[in-house]
Amino acid sequence: MPVAAPRAPRRTARSARTSAASRGRGGSGSKMVYSFGPSRCDGNAGQKLLLGGKGANLADMTSIGLPVPPGFTITTETCAAYEQGGGRLPSGLMKQVATAIAQLEKETGKRFGSSSNPLLVSVRSGAAVSMPGMMDTILNLGLNDSAVVGLSKLTGNDRFAFDAYRRLINMFGDVVMDVHHHHFEEAFDRIKKTYGVEQDTEVPAEGLQELCDAYKAVYRRHVGSDFPQDPLRQLELAIEAVFKSWNKPTAISYRTINGIKGLAGTAVNVQSMVFGNMGDDSGTGVAFTRNPSTGENTFYGEFLVNAQGEDVVAGIRTPRPLSEMGRWNRQVTRQLDSIRKTLEKHYRDMQDIEFTIERGRLYMLQTRNGKRTGAAAVRIAVEMVKERLIDRPTALRRIPAADITQLLLPRFDEAAKKKSAPIAKGLPASPGAACGRLAFSAEEAVERTLKGESVLLVRKETSPEDVEGMHHAAGILTSTGGMTSHAAVVARGWGKCCVAGAGALSIDAAKGQVRIGDRVYGRKDTFSIDGSTGEVMLGEIARIVPSKVPGDLSTVLAWADAAARLKVRANADTPEDAARARSFGAVGIGLCRTEHMFFEGERIAAMREMILADSPREREKALAKLLPFQRKDFVGIFTAMKGYPVTVRLLDPPLHEFVPHDDAAQKDLSKRTGVPVGEIRRRIAMLHEQNPMLGHRGCRLAVTYPEILRMQVRAIVEAAIACRGRKIDARPEIMIPLVGTRAELASLRTLTLETIAEVRAAKKFRGTLDIPVGTMIEIPRAALTADEVAEVADFFSFGTNDLTQMAFGFSRDDINTFLPAYLEQGLLEADPFQSIDQGGVGQLVRMACEKGRHTRKALKLGICGEHGGDPTSIRFFDDCNLDYVSCSPFRVPVARLVAAQSTLERA
Amino acid sequence: MPVAAPRAPRRTARSARTSAASRGRGGSGSKMVYSFGPSRCDGNAGQKLLLGGKGANLADMTSIGLPVPPGFTITTETCAAYEQGGGRLPSGLMKQVATAIAQLEKETGKRFGSSSNPLLVSVRSGAAVSMPGMMDTILNLGLNDSAVVGLSKLTGNDRFAFDAYRRLINMFGDVVMDVHHHHFEEAFDRIKKTYGVEQDTEVPAEGLQELCDAYKAVYRRHVGSDFPQDPLRQLELAIEAVFKSWNKPTAISYRTINGIKGLAGTAVNVQSMVFGNMGDDSGTGVAFTRNPSTGENTFYGEFLVNAQGEDVVAGIRTPRPLSEMGRWNRQVTRQLDSIRKTLEKHYRDMQDIEFTIERGRLYMLQTRNGKRTGAAAVRIAVEMVKERLIDRPTALRRIPAADITQLLLPRFDEAAKKKSAPIAKGLPASPGAACGRLAFSAEEAVERTLKGESVLLVRKETSPEDVEGMHHAAGILTSTGGMTSHAAVVARGWGKCCVAGAGALSIDAAKGQVRIGDRVYGRKDTFSIDGSTGEVMLGEIARIVPSKVPGDLSTVLAWADAAARLKVRANADTPEDAARARSFGAVGIGLCRTEHMFFEGERIAAMREMILADSPREREKALAKLLPFQRKDFVGIFTAMKGYPVTVRLLDPPLHEFVPHDDAAQKDLSKRTGVPVGEIRRRIAMLHEQNPMLGHRGCRLAVTYPEILRMQVRAIVEAAIACRGRKIDARPEIMIPLVGTRAELASLRTLTLETIAEVRAAKKFRGTLDIPVGTMIEIPRAALTADEVAEVADFFSFGTNDLTQMAFGFSRDDINTFLPAYLEQGLLEADPFQSIDQGGVGQLVRMACEKGRHTRKALKLGICGEHGGDPTSIRFFDDCNLDYVSCSPFRVPVARLVAAQSTLERA
Repeated sequence: MPVAAPRAPRRTARSARTSAASRGRGGSGSKMVYSFGPSRCDGNAGQKLLLGGKGANLADMTSIGLPVPPGFTITTETCAAYEQGGGRLPSGLMKQVATAIAQLEKETGKRFGSSSNPLLVSVRSGAAVSMPGMMDTILNLGLNDSAVVGLSKLTGNDRFAFDAYRRLINMFGDVVMDVHHHHFEEAFDRIKKTYGVEQDTEVPAEGLQELCDAYKAVYRRHVGSDFPQDPLRQLELAIEAVFKSWNKPTAISYRTINGIKGLAGTAVNVQSMVFGNMGDDSGTGVAFTRNPSTGENTFYGEFLVNAQGEDVVAGIRTPRPLSEMGRWNRQVTRQLDSIRKTLEKHYRDMQDIEFTIERGRLYMLQTRNGKRTGAAAVRIAVEMVKERLIDRPTALRRIPAADITQLLLPRFDEAAKKKSAPIAKGLPASPGAACGRLAFSAEEAVERTLKGESVLLVRKETSPEDVEGMHHAAGILTSTGGMTSHAAVVARGWGKCCVAGAGALSIDAAKGQVRIGDRVYGRKDTFSIDGSTGEVMLGEIARIVPSKVPGDLSTVLAWADAAARLKVRANADTPEDAARARSFGAVGIGLCRTEHMFFEGERIAAMREMILADSPREREKALAKLLPFQRKDFVGIFTAMKGYPVTVRLLDPPLHEFVPHDDAAQKDLSKRTGVPVGEIRRRIAMLHEQNPMLGHRGCRLAVTYPEILRMQVRAIVEAAIACRGRKIDARPEIMIPLVGTRAELASLRTLTLETIAEVRAAKKFRGTLDIPVGTMIEIPRAALTADEVAEVADFFSFGTNDLTQMAFGFSRDDINTFLPAYLEQGLLEADPFQSIDQGGVGQLVRMACEKGRHTRKALKLGICGEHGGDPTSIRFFDDCNLDYVSCSPFRVPVARLVAAQSTLERA
Repeated sequence: MPVAAPRAPRRTARSARTSAASRGRGGSGSKMVYSFGPSRCDGNAGQKLLLGGKGANLADMTSIGLPVPPGFTITTETCAAYEQGGGRLPSGLMKQVATAIAQLEKETGKRFGSSSNPLLVSVRSGAAVSMPGMMDTILNLGLNDSAVVGLSKLTGNDRFAFDAYRRLINMFGDVVMDVHHHHFEEAFDRIKKTYGVEQDTEVPAEGLQELCDAYKAVYRRHVGSDFPQDPLRQLELAIEAVFKSWNKPTAISYRTINGIKGLAGTAVNVQSMVFGNMGDDSGTGVAFTRNPSTGENTFYGEFLVNAQGEDVVAGIRTPRPLSEMGRWNRQVTRQLDSIRKTLEKHYRDMQDIEFTIERGRLYMLQTRNGKRTGAAAVRIAVEMVKERLIDRPTALRRIPAADITQLLLPRFDEAAKKKSAPIAKGLPASPGAACGRLAFSAEEAVERTLKGESVLLVRKETSPEDVEGMHHAAGILTSTGGMTSHAAVVARGWGKCCVAGAGALSIDAAKGQVRIGDRVYGRKDTFSIDGSTGEVMLGEIARIVPSKVPGDLSTVLAWADAAARLKVRANADTPEDAARARSFGAVGIGLCRTEHMFFEGERIAAMREMILADSPREREKALAKLLPFQRKDFVGIFTAMKGYPVTVRLLDPPLHEFVPHDDAAQKDLSKRTGVPVGEIRRRIAMLHEQNPMLGHRGCRLAVTYPEILRMQVRAIVEAAIACRGRKIDARPEIMIPLVGTRAELASLRTLTLETIAEVRAAKKFRGTLDIPVGTMIEIPRAALTADEVAEVADFFSFGTNDLTQMAFGFSRDDINTFLPAYLEQGLLEADPFQSIDQGGVGQLVRMACEKGRHTRKALKLGICGEHGGDPTSIRFFDDCNLDYVSCSPFRVPVARLVAAQSTLERA
């Protein structure tokens, strides 16, 4: 029932409602059409619900004086009225449309259907929220048999004019009249056959003219009437098609699924078309209001004379830089410069714009926030704050945190990289760029590096035995293992480039060869690996190595620190790492792994002696050799981090990670220790475990070998006392790993406190030395019973790597066999080792926080898993009210920024 | 301040409280002493708080007419008054004590300190709850220099009299006066030297008399006064010592730790002593009111004439059976018979009694519920119900559930077993008794068994490859692995005897030898293993093989089924297991593992082909060979379980468990498949995982190889349809293992339902065939997100083995390296794989139940882990409101009984 003309004289409830609605929105008397143009602009930016997103934006741009091609928007309420009226356009609408078109003709000096200077318009849908399934754009509306002649004359381009016309008939037939696209395709194919050509673009102007006739015939055959020659009739049908598309099943289901409610309908945007190909006084261009690559505050873009936007994209003609535009048209250039300022002042962000000059007149086709590199984002944010365009919170919120890592790492020169195609691809395990000749073992990598070569360590997978070689190599490349494999984790910790799990590589370490497909590479070949993309390339590619922390980034990070609630610490195991962590702004070490300290030189020998020891006494003897090394390391780390806390995790990995598994090394060990090699093999075999991840490691080692804990605590306390002697404010915290029960922690805490007291007494230290003793929460049971565990813990630090392994039952070393299928089938949204699984693992974290703080209000909470450097995960941890996150030094800046963003978002 | 005599005239708050207390309890006017004896009995069984457990029990026994040696109890409130009085006995107490002693002298006809017929008493502490740290018993109190002469005359045994006296001085000195025991020891050593003997018992009477003098000297030297010759003074000091012991630190800390509150103090029990060694009219004995071994309703015990209880224990003289007692003293025998009836009527349970006859007069020293074997417990319970002594709920509650397993399994003849000392000890992994010659590989076990030998399979550990050999062997003995190792779990499932983790065994399978200490055993040696104790013995030991389910047990279990809410299913993988499960009363199969079906004969070959297949097509070809085997197995199982549900778990273990890891088998596989052996090794190496427990298994196999799931579902549905054709009510349920997310289950459920529909269509089956599709809850994440998982599950079945592994981060294959230390140090109360960890893992179970049922009210809940057969765990699962537990067939009767007990306890 048409709402505007109630035929029933009785006022039933239904008709009352209908006519109330028609009065309220879209009735014949109300305003259904909002014009925008230089001489009048009815709408504004705030009317998104009424005019849709696009309509409000066009009104906004127009109202700040931008030369937007004029047009008008039909309101969303008109759509609602159309629907409530049972699918008829509200009466009065087309009258308002006709008035708006007349206004448009006045503004543009063109006329609808004119054969000399025809007005053409585009018609687009536009709801308050963009959604799929809505009507496609119709361009060139207004063309008919006579207007096409006008367009041809104006452009001096027959081909262009008929091409535009045939596109309109096709689009209109397809979108408005539901004529299937393939009918038009068939007609086109026939024309191409006629002219003996294969490509659309090879058809000459006369062919396109014939095509228009053929298309009109297709239209007639399928629609049952002629293609409408009256532009207003074209427009009426197009408007109705937009309204109809609002209730297409795809659109309805999208709204249902996404919970989009409270929208009246879609608006319709009708806008005059402009052409940059109307002669040498016309042109087109794209620009950024600042340099999107560096952030420099200069106008950055390019233009083409006598061309359409698609010519720029197609790359047939080479555009000229914007700096040359003044020479072509000084006035337009000046106008564009002023628009640039207007835009930035209005939108308070760098804009990416498209413009067209039609016969000397500038039109702005589009403006939107411009995409930019991390460096540019930082510089623009800092400079806009200085220019008072934005405030600091806005600046902080605006920088995509993940992008700033690239400011700190070497990267390939893009131009140089384009020249070599990747020969393999792995996972982008640790960002950066590295080149080197191939080395196939850790020893080889060390040896060749010390001789001055730059090498990449190429391994099936890495293990703690390889750490020294990994450290020396320029980069690491593995054929198996995921984003959280040993290689990836260690490399990220150092900010060293790593590509992991490049499955195409078949490595024969004994032969010193790697096979990729049919080709075999050896020690003399050089690879380049891109840790940000996972690409492996042959040969050396030029690299760009950025300076340390660029000034603008320092500024942003200082603001971030001031704004953030959540603190950022780093994971660091050596004095060098600790110094780097400080230089990246970490306010403490959240995870100092002690096992890496046992691999260098003499240490591993003593460690192995300890492991092979037969009795606690022998074990203590070997441990005594390790004590001075550990103490020295701690003194170094405490010194680098003076005044900031250093959380030292006691020995965590299973002992078999420290013993040699190859023949030669076992024989060597036998020689050194005097233990027969058979006996050594027997003891190493005894250390073997079915599932080492769930085996004899972490605090379980301290339960069975308390002397190891005692040695480590002794080293920590002696180091702290030594530092105090040198007026260095050492602040160690002792962290006991892999705790599952209150009883475990209670027992080991007691042992720890006893040892601290013993060392104090032995050293006659009388100062205050408050060393908190806490635990990792990485076993699900510890999270479940966190209320009990907190009774004996000064702090919790979530080990979300292991927590994820155990909560999911996923071994991160083995996950590659099925994870790809899971991601592909959508069974997992993301690798849960990269971004924390908030729904499952996150429940354990939240539960442990709540239970822990319920027992001990002042319980310090942190996280030291890989997730500590992941933006989404950091937001989650902030929401859990953790005190700090701890991540690899190179991710510290990212984390500091995210911490600030999270605080701002939560405020 | 003594409570009975407030010296302060002013009534302060404190003195008011004190005197109120003194009025209330233990004041001079109130009753502090409760006598028990034939002529008067002041207390009763309900006065535990006032008289302590022991005192109330003595009053109870006396009041039902038992000839208990008379005595009296000083109330717990007197103890409180002593304490509140600042450590002084309430005034008036000793007067009441003296009166009670006079009454005692009248009852016994003896006199305190008499040199002709002395009254001796014992003094014991006795609170309402028994606790350690309280004062030890003092015996023979009342002896002094003249009474010892009286005792000697009465017994005609000087040695006995002086021995009793020296014991009193020692005990009194030690317990009451804090004289250290070693001072008395030294004196004794000197006497032994004097007499040139080594043993206490070799010292003659005169030596003991000298010893009494020496002890008195020790006493004098350390106490500063003479050993009190006044029996009443002895008694006063002893009473005070009991009261003092109430607040010893050990007692206080025990009460604090165990949360024992609300007790006033301890009572003191003073009881006249009787002696069975006063001549041939005296004697002593012990008895059970029914046979504690068989439960037969006959009086069962033994006695000795002219002897003390310790003579029976010492085994120097051989006691005579109770049946011969009538010939010695008809009257006493009749009295004892009548007491037997009185006791059972009063306590309504079989009693274990101690009695003494002093000069023709019978005294009951003790009665308590008698310990009994499982068989006796069942028979006694059933017969007492028949006799209307107890009702069925009482009968059910009273049988220790764990003990009834022994009724169903072979066991060693105890007498035969006593003759051979164990040569090694392992864990009691699966109860029963087995003997056999040693076999060192699964193949060997099969071969030799088929040739008629009885063999024990002796392995370091077992793996699924060994299953056939394990099945054939008479028993299984491993040198590593715990209570939930592969060997243990599989053996328990079959009710096959297994001793696991016998660490002393060093096995050389290649040589066919096992070394224990210095000795080496081989294929010709026979071992006997006791799966209930873990003992390993050399040679064959006679065994007792019980009949199936004894009648009385059937009766009890029928009562249990009627009483229980929780249902009991069995874990069974073959038609034979299923039949056994039914015979043990399982009302369904809760876990039918399909992987065991793949190991026999041709199947493993097809399975290996499937695993080595290069493409889904090849894989499907190999799977097609497995389909008929699986279908046949299912038809067998469904037939055995007709009318009852069978939950089939789809393939769970990682594929590398099915491939051969030894050279010979790999070469064999190469020959069969035509795949070069190098290629086979390469593919097997690719299947290797760091942590297979957390690897590519369970539903992850179905995600990556959906064709495996399809084959299995096809086999299940085809089998069910085939059964229906034969009018067999097959009720399969399909269970998807190792689910961690809703998405996984949703996807595999869809695949399952599609396959069911396909088979139905192909078989043109039109009947109802409702096959529930559910999941194991064994991944912590699944428990945490059970609300989501339940959206796509018809049932949950808790896999508490894996849930425990992942919640604790314990690999059950590797736990033996640290679990012993954990149990020893008290860091864990029990092996969490044997009894569910209610505090941690239990939280996940409870959470999943609640969340799951919140989503789907009718969600069926069960548990199919090893815990399903553990009594404590079953009670917990009942409390979680699970619908059923599923356990090994041999544990089904235990579970049925516990289910009933749990229901009764919760009511």
